[in-house]
Amino acid sequence: MAKHICPFELAENFMRDVLVKVGVAPEDAAITADVLVESDKRGHDTHGVGRCKPIYYDRIKKGILNTKVEITIEKETPTTAVIDGHNSLGHVVSKRAMQMAIDKAKKNGLGMVVVRNSTHNGIAGYYSSMAADQGCIGMCGTNARPSIAPTFAVENMLGTNPLCFAFPSDEKFAFNLDCATSIAQRGRVEQYARDGLTLPSGWVIDSHGKPATDPDAVLQMLTKGEAAMAPLGGIGEETAGYKGYGYATVVEVLSAALSSANFLRACYGKKADGSAGPIELGHFFFAADVSAFTDLATFKKNTGDIMRELRTAKLAEGATRIYTAGEKEFEAYHHQLEQGGVVIEGPIAHTFDVMREETGLTQYIFPWDEKYAQMMKEQGKKEGETIYTDDLIKSMCLDPSFHASKGCMGACNCHHRTV
Amino acid sequence: MAKHICPFELAENFMRDVLVKVGVAPEDAAITADVLVESDKRGHDTHGVGRCKPIYYDRIKKGILNTKVEITIEKETPTTAVIDGHNSLGHVVSKRAMQMAIDKAKKNGLGMVVVRNSTHNGIAGYYSSMAADQGCIGMCGTNARPSIAPTFAVENMLGTNPLCFAFPSDEKFAFNLDCATSIAQRGRVEQYARDGLTLPSGWVIDSHGKPATDPDAVLQMLTKGEAAMAPLGGIGEETAGYKGYGYATVVEVLSAALSSANFLRACYGKKADGSAGPIELGHFFFAADVSAFTDLATFKKNTGDIMRELRTAKLAEGATRIYTAGEKEFEAYHHQLEQGGVVIEGPIAHTFDVMREETGLTQYIFPWDEKYAQMMKEQGKKEGETIYTDDLIKSMCLDPSFHASKGCMGACNCHHRTV
Repeated sequence: MAKHICPFELAENFMRDVLVKVGVAPEDAAITADVLVESDKRGHDTHGVGRCKPIYYDRIKKGILNTKVEITIEKETPTTAVIDGHNSLGHVVSKRAMQMAIDKAKKNGLGMVVVRNSTHNGIAGYYSSMAADQGCIGMCGTNARPSIAPTFAVENMLGTNPLCFAFPSDEKFAFNLDCATSIAQRGRVEQYARDGLTLPSGWVIDSHGKPATDPDAVLQMLTKGEAAMAPLGGIGEETAGYKGYGYATVVEVLSAALSSANFLRACYGKKADGSAGPIELGHFFFAADVSAFTDLATFKKNTGDIMRELRTAKLAEGATRIYTAGEKEFEAYHHQLEQGGVVIEGPIAHTFDVMREETGLTQYIFPWDEKYAQMMKEQGKKEGETIYTDDLIKSMCLDPSFHASKGCMGACNCHHRTV
Repeated sequence: MAKHICPFELAENFMRDVLVKVGVAPEDAAITADVLVESDKRGHDTHGVGRCKPIYYDRIKKGILNTKVEITIEKETPTTAVIDGHNSLGHVVSKRAMQMAIDKAKKNGLGMVVVRNSTHNGIAGYYSSMAADQGCIGMCGTNARPSIAPTFAVENMLGTNPLCFAFPSDEKFAFNLDCATSIAQRGRVEQYARDGLTLPSGWVIDSHGKPATDPDAVLQMLTKGEAAMAPLGGIGEETAGYKGYGYATVVEVLSAALSSANFLRACYGKKADGSAGPIELGHFFFAADVSAFTDLATFKKNTGDIMRELRTAKLAEGATRIYTAGEKEFEAYHHQLEQGGVVIEGPIAHTFDVMREETGLTQYIFPWDEKYAQMMKEQGKKEGETIYTDDLIKSMCLDPSFHASKGCMGACNCHHRTV
């Protein structure tokens, strides 16, 4: 399959401008684009720019996802809040909710914000990172479209329900455990099908309660409801699948029971007539200010010491290295920095082309475009740098006042965030 | 193996009096006895009365566990606290720490208390239950003696590190997920060895990085450091063992980094000369008052609705029923109520006999004693009722003022708690 390296900035700008073209406010589009590209940077490409079209863009065009971000606070105390996302972009709702939890923690030690009527919010680890970056412990999660079968069942009931924790550390990267409470997700099965591989036994349970390992068959069975993803720990109780099922349920309750959000089968996003409707979800965000317990430097050193000691464990035969959570993501980012951006595979490049055409954002030139190489040369760009055509510069000034407010040098080529 | 049914009350009174005899204050001994018997009631007999001798009683007699419970508050805010347990009984330290978190939550929405220099505190679910019983969400955990190998390692580094959550519900029992972040623990391996069974592949990793399944060999290998328990998700990355390893690490950090408690290899409880020393651990306790988010009845109904819907999932072939966390524990308790108490196996009965003899608590008559059946008959007792000899009645008045303060009718036969 064709693979192209696309500069982060180019991908992020394009994501943002596509969303603006379909009606999202520039500031909200910028947040969504940032979360999408951040997923790729961390190597979580199942949640990256490849998701823009099938999830957000398409749902907006079908009118089942609100472009206008509306957030109402339904209940609030100095440490807690319940907010309603009114079926708008989950990334924006979630970023605001986590910042609210962090602000409460900074003021009162702890903060917890729960959300209802929100939508798919990308990688959970983005929000826990916000807490760690601000000297807090972060915990968050979300429910999702049913994908996991309870132990002893074969029906998708629970979402892949990530349960995510991040801690500041004195290492170059924070500890950040950002993972689903299933063993794997549909996206991984699709990858195995593309690569012609057999699935590891235990990822998927068929309707006889047995492992299913043919990825093509599994994809069909999943769609027909004849197979389900197994919870972390696997099928049945022997290898403690009930624990993963339990943690998925914990996430369901924290996401939905405090905020009275949809849960389980109600998260299928089907209207009464069976047609596609909004997938309104619940999320939860928790922050604890480290300095309410100990000084931040001590905590960071303790956490770093734990990570460093873990890496000294005696290696299994044939193993070369022990990782801690967040380490692979850190290395994925640096690997991509070296290679000049995010890898875009053929099918994803195609979604970029479709969105470019449909939105008329023809000022964007992608690495798979014929004239790209020549333009790079003309502009004296190195790999990883973005080509700014005059049209692109002009087109980026969607909201010059917004750009200016971020302290940009001009109306173009600005970075809304520092990596 | 001989099995005896011992009334809960008899077991609990005996645990308490044994601990008092070795120097624990009656009130603290009563808490510890309650936590131990509660484990059995929930069917978590790996953490029940069978643990009294090898862990608490023996460590106290060896002088490596303080009998005098001392708790100092090292730092406190309206929502948070750090406490030092001074190497005293973990159950008592933990019960106080969780109550502190709950009290803070009731006042300020959220509460979190972390502990250092505490000791083995029994089932984590006891403390999360306290929160659920008081209208709060409870989360807690503890680090422990190294038992889990990180992914790609074969050395025990992390404790079985439970990560526990409880939620109030409108069902007859609260949701309570009380489980280790390993697949299984040493106690389960011992059970398989006793029953002459082969271990499920994946529970234990040998030094070649392969599954070890002979329980007798595994027990020897574990002791020699030639094998380790696998994290939830299994050995390696294929079935997502890195997630269980990640959650075990989360518990290690929450237990140790905020409170500056011991972590990883420092939890082996070895002195510099290699002899047995205190195993000082860290714990964490979190409570969120449901009413800070929504009214308790709504939350309980939402949680109950999630549980009830989960149980309607399509069953796998051959499966008969879907459980939710806390359900098996609830049924285990009722099953034991029917059978008249907790099952005591031969080796555990023997530890009771040894403790009775060593402490001189000869007024206790156990179901495996020759005169038990006759005394039951003489006193007109039904199975499940405790025989109170005159000596026992007298012996129970260890601290009549304490008993009176609990509103007991007399100095004997009192229940310090209502199940």
